[in-house]
Amino acid sequence: MEEKLFLYNSLSRKKEKFEPVNPPYVGMYVCGPTVYGDAHLGHARPAVTFDLLFRYLLHLGYKVRYVRNITDVGHLENDADSGEDKIAKKAKIEQLEPMEIAQFYINRYHREMQKLNVLDPSIEPHASGHIIEQIELIKVILEKGYAYESNGSVYFDVEKYNKNYNYGKLSGRVLDDLYCNTRELDGQSEKRNSFDFALWKKASPEHIMRWSSPWSDGFPGWHLECSAMGHKYLGEKFDIHGGGMDLLFPHHECELAQNTVAIGEETVKYWVHNNMITINGQKMGKSLGNFITLEEMFSGSNKILERPYSPMTIRFFILQAHYRSTLDFSNEALQAAEKGLTRLLKGYEVLSKLNPDNESSVDAETIMSKCYDAINDDLNSPIVISYLFDAIKIINSVACGNEKIDRKNLDTLKDIFNIFLFNILGIKNDSSDSQENSEVLKNVLAMVLELRSQAKANKDYATSDLIRNELSKLGITIKDKKDGCEWEIN
Amino acid sequence: MEEKLFLYNSLSRKKEKFEPVNPPYVGMYVCGPTVYGDAHLGHARPAVTFDLLFRYLLHLGYKVRYVRNITDVGHLENDADSGEDKIAKKAKIEQLEPMEIAQFYINRYHREMQKLNVLDPSIEPHASGHIIEQIELIKVILEKGYAYESNGSVYFDVEKYNKNYNYGKLSGRVLDDLYCNTRELDGQSEKRNSFDFALWKKASPEHIMRWSSPWSDGFPGWHLECSAMGHKYLGEKFDIHGGGMDLLFPHHECELAQNTVAIGEETVKYWVHNNMITINGQKMGKSLGNFITLEEMFSGSNKILERPYSPMTIRFFILQAHYRSTLDFSNEALQAAEKGLTRLLKGYEVLSKLNPDNESSVDAETIMSKCYDAINDDLNSPIVISYLFDAIKIINSVACGNEKIDRKNLDTLKDIFNIFLFNILGIKNDSSDSQENSEVLKNVLAMVLELRSQAKANKDYATSDLIRNELSKLGITIKDKKDGCEWEIN
Repeated sequence: MEEKLFLYNSLSRKKEKFEPVNPPYVGMYVCGPTVYGDAHLGHARPAVTFDLLFRYLLHLGYKVRYVRNITDVGHLENDADSGEDKIAKKAKIEQLEPMEIAQFYINRYHREMQKLNVLDPSIEPHASGHIIEQIELIKVILEKGYAYESNGSVYFDVEKYNKNYNYGKLSGRVLDDLYCNTRELDGQSEKRNSFDFALWKKASPEHIMRWSSPWSDGFPGWHLECSAMGHKYLGEKFDIHGGGMDLLFPHHECELAQNTVAIGEETVKYWVHNNMITINGQKMGKSLGNFITLEEMFSGSNKILERPYSPMTIRFFILQAHYRSTLDFSNEALQAAEKGLTRLLKGYEVLSKLNPDNESSVDAETIMSKCYDAINDDLNSPIVISYLFDAIKIINSVACGNEKIDRKNLDTLKDIFNIFLFNILGIKNDSSDSQENSEVLKNVLAMVLELRSQAKANKDYATSDLIRNELSKLGITIKDKKDGCEWEIN
Repeated sequence: MEEKLFLYNSLSRKKEKFEPVNPPYVGMYVCGPTVYGDAHLGHARPAVTFDLLFRYLLHLGYKVRYVRNITDVGHLENDADSGEDKIAKKAKIEQLEPMEIAQFYINRYHREMQKLNVLDPSIEPHASGHIIEQIELIKVILEKGYAYESNGSVYFDVEKYNKNYNYGKLSGRVLDDLYCNTRELDGQSEKRNSFDFALWKKASPEHIMRWSSPWSDGFPGWHLECSAMGHKYLGEKFDIHGGGMDLLFPHHECELAQNTVAIGEETVKYWVHNNMITINGQKMGKSLGNFITLEEMFSGSNKILERPYSPMTIRFFILQAHYRSTLDFSNEALQAAEKGLTRLLKGYEVLSKLNPDNESSVDAETIMSKCYDAINDDLNSPIVISYLFDAIKIINSVACGNEKIDRKNLDTLKDIFNIFLFNILGIKNDSSDSQENSEVLKNVLAMVLELRSQAKANKDYATSDLIRNELSKLGITIKDKKDGCEWEIN
């Protein structure tokens, strides 16, 4: 396992060589969904991005423990940590137990992720299932003097932290600017400074989700869960912490502060952030009301969509942009992605039918090593994809006899597709399943074409033309070849 | 919603009219899997049994909150509450984080349940995610004087409980018999009596799964989780508690004791237990090493199996026995189930092609009401199935012209299948998916049969016979009928 992978570290603001803390083990923590609504396109991007990283690390032979949490409590309505709990609010509307809503959306999230061929993380801890660990962490932060209790709630003392450490080191925010930027909000009077964030919130009497603690019956602050669960499952120092760029501040900045106080040093070696999906240049998000759910994407049931897009089209669309670039949604872009993906999959089919020559006029090894260079360069999936398209050109040239390929290069080309397209980029050949199902169809069509050949041999052109025309009506094209004929379903 | 459903209550040992505590709401708690291995046939039975009950309650119009827990901690090796934690033990073997193993098997369990068409429960709480709730419950039981601390662990005082209440009232065990029956086991010296059970266990230093508590760093006893999570999500008094009969003692007996002390009265109105799946007359279970996993069932990869059995065959096999009868595994029984299911599904296809007459010699309404009577009689699914077979006889009689059916009876017959076979028994027509996929195949075959008709019309019997024979080789049978012909894939 030669280490050639470079990852952009949001903390150092540069690409760094990836060297695990404790090889061959790699610990990766990624912020998962808040389960109070259906997953939308904006949720697909981190899921696919870190699935790409997970798959590549596994490919490199690392033993990866990938933790992706479920936020089912404590995610407050706004950054200032006040307002209602998002999940509890929805529960009151629907007159349901909050956990019933959380479960509903967890199940749906899992099914969407399966469709996108996103691998299961190793552990998927629930925030509500780690209240004790969060309470323990608060105790440590209180003991170390970087938090204070106020009216049953506990807040992190950002000003004090910033005297000894650097609040803003991850996000680039400057504390001085925050003094004026934060608005007055409910519950803020309990805080020494408006930018202090809650570690524990006392629950109001009508609040459903609540646990006992040394300070009050209440619930943990949002930023705490990731610190607590990261440490629990990955240890005090681990390799990668990922998430969307919108989580850099305040979420990850606060997490880093909590970790630094609790552990005494930085916990995470590489902070990795994917950029946002935009729609008409605006971030796509629940709060903005401009989101398209994955279910709508797959079924086409959103008026913004010209038609449905398959899960693999969505996945390929996401991978066609580098994860740190913004990615703007449009029907045109998705249709282009679909076309590109179809070209790759058709090319792969042609490849699997090629016969090797004794000599080769093509060099597949170079393409393979270029693909590795691209993926090693901060997971540059669009460049990997461009090399796959180069491979398709070669395949087509060989197929029409303009180039020659020998066994070794043929095998390498197949490896390129298996390793990069299917294994690392995680593309699944959707149509291959249904093709297997219709083994019968293949046999029946072979028989029909045989009937047609016989008719032609008997100069019964009425019948042979009838067969061609009838199949054509069904969307099946017959291509006459030197040595028989082939068919294709349009 | 007229209440005609009777359920056998293990507590009263008789069938009782089902009357919810707080209609139209129904709370149902079922003991779910311990996730330290793959689900086997023995796990499919409670899942399918309580899915049947869940589906029927929903059909009756109740608003059901169905809680099925995940035991990911605290399930000890034997009834005496000593020995290693099953999940932690496996973790040591595989050098993995226990939660990584739990997650692995949770994901697999979910996929198997999906294949069996078992509906998702409303909430699926994890034992490890409810440590605080369990600690709170222990505090209450300690305060009420029915538990004692011993060396950092807390035990339930069965003898004292039995003085004021009745330990054994659910399972029929008599405490006097238990004095001599229990063996001396590790940790037992901490207990006042060998039959006392742990509410909290102090963790040995090497124990991985541990949480802080007022008594020690440790973990909760197995019986506690269901009491705690049942109350949390369903309230102090709820309708149904389900599980396998093997859980009657000690698990449910202990749970009832905990609830009675904590709440002051009985919590559960109806205790419902499914019987076991046996193999050669022995209970199928992990500890006995004679189990067949569901994955093996579906793939046929177990030497006991003559061939694979589809998830719907397994489901139907389970439903063909009453849930309170034992069900003995054999290849013969599964193949008979498969045959029966195929007959029902083929009959339903015939039904959907029947045309109504002006008069009717059959009475579908009576079958419908018999099906309701059977399901209302403690979920008598085998009787429901026998009436569905009666319906098939009628359908076939109508199809060959021996009986007449009018629109009203035809619709009722369709309703019977939709309500009972598909909706309540939860059978999914597996083949209908692939049939949809092969819409093209249908069209192509229609064309082939048309070619054959033309050949016959032209007295070109060589061609018409050729088509029949070639299709036959592909496993497709042509049936000539008065008004054309039909085909069937064998």
